[in-house]
Amino acid sequence: MNREQLKTLLQQVKNGETGIDEALALIKDMPYKELGFAKIDHHRGLRRGFPEVIYCAGKTVEQVTAIFQSLAAGGSNVLATRASAEMYASVKKVIPQAKYYHLPGVIALYQGEQKQVGSILVVCAGTSDLPVAEEAAVTAEVMGNKVERLYDVGVAGLHRLLMNWSLLEKARVLVVVAGMEGALPSVVGGLVDKPVVAVPTSVGYGAAFNGLAALLAMLNSCCAGVTVVNIDNGFGAGYTASLINKLGEVEQ
Amino acid sequence: MNREQLKTLLQQVKNGETGIDEALALIKDMPYKELGFAKIDHHRGLRRGFPEVIYCAGKTVEQVTAIFQSLAAGGSNVLATRASAEMYASVKKVIPQAKYYHLPGVIALYQGEQKQVGSILVVCAGTSDLPVAEEAAVTAEVMGNKVERLYDVGVAGLHRLLMNWSLLEKARVLVVVAGMEGALPSVVGGLVDKPVVAVPTSVGYGAAFNGLAALLAMLNSCCAGVTVVNIDNGFGAGYTASLINKLGEVEQ
Amino acid sequence: MNREQLKTLLQQVKNGETGIDEALALIKDMPYKELGFAKIDHHRGLRRGFPEVIYCAGKTVEQVTAIFQSLAAGGSNVLATRASAEMYASVKKVIPQAKYYHLPGVIALYQGEQKQVGSILVVCAGTSDLPVAEEAAVTAEVMGNKVERLYDVGVAGLHRLLMNWSLLEKARVLVVVAGMEGALPSVVGGLVDKPVVAVPTSVGYGAAFNGLAALLAMLNSCCAGVTVVNIDNGFGAGYTASLINKLGEVEQ
Amino acid sequence: MNREQLKTLLQQVKNGETGIDEALALIKDMPYKELGFAKIDHHRGLRRGFPEVIYCAGKTVEQVTAIFQSLAAGGSNVLATRASAEMYASVKKVIPQAKYYHLPGVIALYQGEQKQVGSILVVCAGTSDLPVAEEAAVTAEVMGNKVERLYDVGVAGLHRLLMNWSLLEKARVLVVVAGMEGALPSVVGGLVDKPVVAVPTSVGYGAAFNGLAALLAMLNSCCAGVTVVNIDNGFGAGYTASLINKLGEVEQ
Amino acid sequence: MNREQLKTLLQQVKNGETGIDEALALIKDMPYKELGFAKIDHHRGLRRGFPEVIYCAGKTVEQVTAIFQSLAAGGSNVLATRASAEMYASVKKVIPQAKYYHLPGVIALYQGEQKQVGSILVVCAGTSDLPVAEEAAVTAEVMGNKVERLYDVGVAGLHRLLMNWSLLEKARVLVVVAGMEGALPSVVGGLVDKPVVAVPTSVGYGAAFNGLAALLAMLNSCCAGVTVVNIDNGFGAGYTASLINKLGEVEQ
Amino acid sequence: MNREQLKTLLQQVKNGETGIDEALALIKDMPYKELGFAKIDHHRGLRRGFPEVIYCAGKTVEQVTAIFQSLAAGGSNVLATRASAEMYASVKKVIPQAKYYHLPGVIALYQGEQKQVGSILVVCAGTSDLPVAEEAAVTAEVMGNKVERLYDVGVAGLHRLLMNWSLLEKARVLVVVAGMEGALPSVVGGLVDKPVVAVPTSVGYGAAFNGLAALLAMLNSCCAGVTVVNIDNGFGAGYTASLINKLGEVEQ
Amino acid sequence: MNREQLKTLLQQVKNGETGIDEALALIKDMPYKELGFAKIDHHRGLRRGFPEVIYCAGKTVEQVTAIFQSLAAGGSNVLATRASAEMYASVKKVIPQAKYYHLPGVIALYQGEQKQVGSILVVCAGTSDLPVAEEAAVTAEVMGNKVERLYDVGVAGLHRLLMNWSLLEKARVLVVVAGMEGALPSVVGGLVDKPVVAVPTSVGYGAAFNGLAALLAMLNSCCAGVTVVNIDNGFGAGYTASLINKLGEVEQ
Amino acid sequence: MNREQLKTLLQQVKNGETGIDEALALIKDMPYKELGFAKIDHHRGLRRGFPEVIYCAGKTVEQVTAIFQSLAAGGSNVLATRASAEMYASVKKVIPQAKYYHLPGVIALYQGEQKQVGSILVVCAGTSDLPVAEEAAVTAEVMGNKVERLYDVGVAGLHRLLMNWSLLEKARVLVVVAGMEGALPSVVGGLVDKPVVAVPTSVGYGAAFNGLAALLAMLNSCCAGVTVVNIDNGFGAGYTASLINKLGEVEQ
Repeated sequence: MNREQLKTLLQQVKNGETGIDEALALIKDMPYKELGFAKIDHHRGLRRGFPEVIYCAGKTVEQVTAIFQSLAAGGSNVLATRASAEMYASVKKVIPQAKYYHLPGVIALYQGEQKQVGSILVVCAGTSDLPVAEEAAVTAEVMGNKVERLYDVGVAGLHRLLMNWSLLEKARVLVVVAGMEGALPSVVGGLVDKPVVAVPTSVGYGAAFNGLAALLAMLNSCCAGVTVVNIDNGFGAGYTASLINKLGEVEQ
Repeated sequence: MNREQLKTLLQQVKNGETGIDEALALIKDMPYKELGFAKIDHHRGLRRGFPEVIYCAGKTVEQVTAIFQSLAAGGSNVLATRASAEMYASVKKVIPQAKYYHLPGVIALYQGEQKQVGSILVVCAGTSDLPVAEEAAVTAEVMGNKVERLYDVGVAGLHRLLMNWSLLEKARVLVVVAGMEGALPSVVGGLVDKPVVAVPTSVGYGAAFNGLAALLAMLNSCCAGVTVVNIDNGFGAGYTASLINKLGEVEQ
Repeated sequence: MNREQLKTLLQQVKNGETGIDEALALIKDMPYKELGFAKIDHHRGLRRGFPEVIYCAGKTVEQVTAIFQSLAAGGSNVLATRASAEMYASVKKVIPQAKYYHLPGVIALYQGEQKQVGSILVVCAGTSDLPVAEEAAVTAEVMGNKVERLYDVGVAGLHRLLMNWSLLEKARVLVVVAGMEGALPSVVGGLVDKPVVAVPTSVGYGAAFNGLAALLAMLNSCCAGVTVVNIDNGFGAGYTASLINKLGEVEQ
Repeated sequence: MNREQLKTLLQQVKNGETGIDEALALIKDMPYKELGFAKIDHHRGLRRGFPEVIYCAGKTVEQVTAIFQSLAAGGSNVLATRASAEMYASVKKVIPQAKYYHLPGVIALYQGEQKQVGSILVVCAGTSDLPVAEEAAVTAEVMGNKVERLYDVGVAGLHRLLMNWSLLEKARVLVVVAGMEGALPSVVGGLVDKPVVAVPTSVGYGAAFNGLAALLAMLNSCCAGVTVVNIDNGFGAGYTASLINKLGEVEQ
Repeated sequence: MNREQLKTLLQQVKNGETGIDEALALIKDMPYKELGFAKIDHHRGLRRGFPEVIYCAGKTVEQVTAIFQSLAAGGSNVLATRASAEMYASVKKVIPQAKYYHLPGVIALYQGEQKQVGSILVVCAGTSDLPVAEEAAVTAEVMGNKVERLYDVGVAGLHRLLMNWSLLEKARVLVVVAGMEGALPSVVGGLVDKPVVAVPTSVGYGAAFNGLAALLAMLNSCCAGVTVVNIDNGFGAGYTASLINKLGEVEQ
Repeated sequence: MNREQLKTLLQQVKNGETGIDEALALIKDMPYKELGFAKIDHHRGLRRGFPEVIYCAGKTVEQVTAIFQSLAAGGSNVLATRASAEMYASVKKVIPQAKYYHLPGVIALYQGEQKQVGSILVVCAGTSDLPVAEEAAVTAEVMGNKVERLYDVGVAGLHRLLMNWSLLEKARVLVVVAGMEGALPSVVGGLVDKPVVAVPTSVGYGAAFNGLAALLAMLNSCCAGVTVVNIDNGFGAGYTASLINKLGEVEQ
Repeated sequence: MNREQLKTLLQQVKNGETGIDEALALIKDMPYKELGFAKIDHHRGLRRGFPEVIYCAGKTVEQVTAIFQSLAAGGSNVLATRASAEMYASVKKVIPQAKYYHLPGVIALYQGEQKQVGSILVVCAGTSDLPVAEEAAVTAEVMGNKVERLYDVGVAGLHRLLMNWSLLEKARVLVVVAGMEGALPSVVGGLVDKPVVAVPTSVGYGAAFNGLAALLAMLNSCCAGVTVVNIDNGFGAGYTASLINKLGEVEQ
Repeated sequence: MNREQLKTLLQQVKNGETGIDEALALIKDMPYKELGFAKIDHHRGLRRGFPEVIYCAGKTVEQVTAIFQSLAAGGSNVLATRASAEMYASVKKVIPQAKYYHLPGVIALYQGEQKQVGSILVVCAGTSDLPVAEEAAVTAEVMGNKVERLYDVGVAGLHRLLMNWSLLEKARVLVVVAGMEGALPSVVGGLVDKPVVAVPTSVGYGAAFNGLAALLAMLNSCCAGVTVVNIDNGFGAGYTASLINKLGEVEQ
């Protein structure tokens, strides 16, 4: 409720058009309505192609299915991350058009006309990093972004990266995924002048400490413009990349 | 050298307009010229308001002064971070219009017409976080962004944050700075639908472990859209926020 | 043996009513009897509704069953934490009225008239934190406290928390449970003027380091009045909350 | 503004006793006033003897002096922690009745009639832990609690602790301070049935890792009823102990 | 080969009683024979009741059986630690008199007359620490020491420990086993004037970090005379205790 | 394409022997061809006995088989590390002459005439370290090096190491593998004047922290000439040892 | 008060020689007197040559001087560790015969006839470890032990250690001090059949992490019989070595 | 003493040419003479250009001067690392031809004819890494190696590295020095087929954790052929590079 609406309401109270109890109910919840505005804002976001997201780890097949069905009823795209094939099988029974991405374990539902805007590039170092890279890529796609992929371009073979310079240059924002020594975001960041969202993965062994080595490397990148998300958090990277990419669309 | 330029050169060789040795010299360095393009790209970046940056920690007063003077000659804005008052005194002698920001220890030089576009909001939790927050804010300003500040709104007093909801909503990208338990980026991120660049600070003692607690908290934010830079890295956050903010200007 | 009893004994020795050897035996063990007073004190505690507690992890089904049966014979409430369904099945055979809480894995036996005093509020951030939150809540209930629950109010959606302000305000002590970035206790602590017992959970992945991130965040809370227990230690939080809550009853 | 006040206001608008603009101003800020209630609540807290607190680390002598003077004007007790002797000298010039506790580096101002209620016992292991223990004790005293001290009773000489059993037993809440192996809270916790707030200190060397060893020990206490604050956080422990101790006074 | 033996050999070479090649072979290996003296020393150790030890973790059933059989042929006691029941079943087929201790997973073979000297006391905090405590106790027994046990005397119930003061006092060396906060060795060490070998266990959860908390606590013991072995290393503690205990027998 | 080849090409363009489009295609990729030179260099490396390597962890049986078959077609030796017996069974069906080393889990294919040059010595501390040591040894053998082994010479029994002094002395480079306290590389390094590649293993328990203790020990070796690879990285050590060993062959 | 004394007291009560109140006072404190026995025990220890010890770190010059003077009055040896030269200068004024050891920063006072029994060998790896080694050696000497030293025998030059085999063999207990990779205790432990007390030092840089690397190495020693004290804790090692060495004297 | 020499000696004993006592003396020390061979080996190493090395940290100016003078008398090159300017001033007084390298803090003395063989390339990422890089370079030079330098080629500006491809290719072994994210060794290692010795530096702040981030990155290099030394250990890298480089000279 904004200032004008409130003024009108008070006028109506004064005029007797609105009863005191009725006005009381409306005004009493106002703080929460204001807080609720955030929710409406969120709905606005949804209309702009942002899906509802279900984080499936630690939920039962039944829970995932029920939540998915409930969200699907809203009419927007739906995204479920870290979902097992068994979860998908259950969801598919009630939402046949739901789609499953095996590598990242993502269930996605596309509803209405799909428009993919801007340009996000997802880069990854090795084949073992693919599930995380795909979680980022699919997340961004379901959120309505155009995504390109540049995979298996680890720093130990620079020519593979350099041969794809043009791909790097045309992206509005880049997601760079790497495990082990996590050097790729620094190298990529040095070649572009766009924001780079770095995702460390738990790929590696021994002193990789389940992604800690890559995480620290990325946080210490000598290249400005690189920011970092949690280990294996492809979803967070794809989500952030979408927020950034959409900025290039806002004013048009 | 692009495809068309190369084609023309070959035509000239065929026609005898260009000697083989001359062509040889031009083509032989081509890979580096292409790599050199990155540098030219960077120059383009500079014209768009991106400054050259000097990281002063570990440099002598003389070195800082010399590099500053050299960069200033390029005509673009110049930014020197982690600079002491002594360094500024020395720089000021040769570049009288250089400006010093005491809190973050930043020397800045504005050259030519300054234009500040878009909207970056720098939020910080406590007064001890101010130096880092200001490093981010000044960096973004020197890079040509419009910056607003919302300081001292730690999570232990939520009303201070909520009372400034409108500031949060109108920013295109937010930099959120916090030490100790590092909770602020999650709370802010939950109130907006824009990218949040989180900066952990080394403020705190004991189990804060010089910023580690805040860093881990931010990496584990339950709020998608939050990415993280190194502890106390206000510069990196301001730089990234600028890259993001400029995306909203690109097509205009 | 207290001062009066000792005086009487000495009187009896003087009077010849008690032999020296008999007195010797009684007095010689007195230090341990005094230490034994602690045990009697503990019994007093039990009468005030404090149960005996069995930590089942690492015990066999037979051991749990036997200890449970033995404690039940004492007539007070009995609490067994980290108990499997199999343990419960075995206990139920000998103590049919024992009750099982699946989520936290707790077996409870209520004996005699149950009185629930005061007001403890258990708050938790996400659904994955529920088992730990319920361990705290059930522990407090079995110890004779009135417990209310406020679940799924993570900091990324502040309105859910703020809409329940009244619940927060009326509690005498709060248990706040959160994983990932562990920000909830700081936010809650800033809204109340009562003690907050914070429980980090191992919920999360990557740089959550099995609850370390949440633990560090809570230890560094910028909000005075927050104290912390071990990761996933719902029992310890419920137990402490009960000790605190009972203080409000002591003098009545 | 509560429900009744709001109803009255609306009635006044209806009756014309209050103008629309005036009502508008009052209602528009209501969410923040409600949030502001927390502040009022805090004021209520102050009247109950809770001081305003200044954390001096990282502030200048001038800042500390100015804030102290401003808070003193409020008429309640004032507490400044981690204050240097130099800060005290400056404060004393403007507030001559301010008192300085050298060991913990605390400046305190007592205003109005002082009433010390309940019973808090501060226990500490070694003489090196005294500054932290005194920070807890003085904090609690300034907040209006009766505090007793039991110092230098480390676990390597149990008899010192046991000889003071009666002190342990009569406390309503205990603050237990220890560095090195941090074993004291477990031992004390096993002797009482009251809440124990454990404070690890940075006392020790080598594998003490500046208090980490003591912190971990306390978090893993085998004794239920023990909660933990940050390393060297005597203030937080004293503050929490005060919140708990006051619960025993609430209903009287 | 000692000086006298070498002198004799040279005499034999001079006299022609020993051929040069034969002497060459003997002398050439002498450095290793001298090093081999250590082995002979070890054999001497064995005669004094020190067993050969097999660390079974990572070995196959067949390997354990073969090594056990080979060592048994030497006639001394044999000890196999971290052995599974399956390993024991296999060993028992070829060495029927071998004995299995289920709790610590130890296979022991006693050969010849057993003499148990001196006095080692193994103390442990909780029932979950028993496997480690028993590994220490059985190791020391197989090595020919008299071992007494004092179990389940955690610091949260001091009276259990104090009631057994006499046991503590009569031991020549103590092994103290504890997990979680690892406070027991400090408390025990403060009650005796004998060496204490502290064994941290991996018992606990969360911030116990698999024994790290207990390990750090023990290393920081405020009580001189406490030394520490690796987490869960009951064998190492029993072995060291035996070396120490035997010193009290050496000169007799 | 080197300078001479480029000059020739330009001559051909001038002479009309090569069309402009054809030349364009050749020159346009030149940077990558230059980068491709690295690849050709690598081929040269292969001819010198360096195999292609497949890291099997995280790959499916089908993927490993397909890649192995493809590499085998190149005619050089092929090496697959961290391969399961099941992977070998599948590879063997299509490449019957492939050989499997069970201990390290390595599949190797020797093609053409095998020449083993120089001298690499692989030393290891205990039998549990054998899989890592064999990964190093087999890697070096497949790469065309002569490898000797000196196993089970841990520092607790120095004579075993000293008895094999001559083996140590004749090696051109040594790989030293150890878990637990990781002391062996320092001791070996002190006995030779050749480079030592140290490999920490994850052998051990408790405070071994899965190889961290050994890793730190080796990095802090008091003996110059010792360098370190990742925990359990036998392949990396064998590969590096081969690079070093081949240097002794280069000029001949 | 022992059993006989208590019996006599009861007899006196019976006989009226002692009043009930008087007896009451004596018996009531008995537990603490029994605990006091420990203190008397300690006195017995002192008579056997154990000194009182002052840990000077964190104490003022005045405090150290006062405590030293007070302890000296007891007539036994006095030991002050981590003492500065300034502290010594002050102590010397009141106790002229006090002696200062510069390297470890130890003040010692020898009183009465000195007897040095048994045999402790202190071994250290490098010259930088000398302060810690000397703290151990001097501690043991002041406690009445015969101490030999074997310094600068790091594992990178084994011959220095092996050439002193006889020293190693004749010791009853060994203290082995090393920083960096901490390998020396394992090597020494493998050469002797006596207890080894290992002391990690903070000598080193980088990944030595102030002694952590050495500490972990020693805890993971592959050699049974090695126990560990805190980083740089020479005093604790000397004290423990004395307790062990004295066991060889007890029965004589 | 080798086999032949021993045979001869025995022959002489048989023939009476050598007395038994004389032979006894020679043979009795043989183990140490053999161990002494290592020393002689070391002398051989010195003649090949390996200097004696003094690690100055923790030594006094007098000690450094005395050791330097003593080593210089040996006639070979002398190297003192981590030496202050004050140490150099003192050394220079007695050895005027000693040379000081300010950046790495190295004192070097060149004696006799200097020959620099082979080819070592020292690469470093940023100007802050120069002291460590120079320590490596000077160490290698004093040991008689030809060293080239390629500085300030961090991964954020790849073209600087690629433009110097030829330098990379012609080196026999490379030392690569980097702080912060430590990515350079992986990138360099992917461009060459020679051994790379990686040196992490403590350059950086925050989550660089004094070089830990760079250390972990290098240990996890995805590029085989990279081995790692301790943080800031330029000396160790230069020493190892020399050992490797010399292998290419050995057989000539």
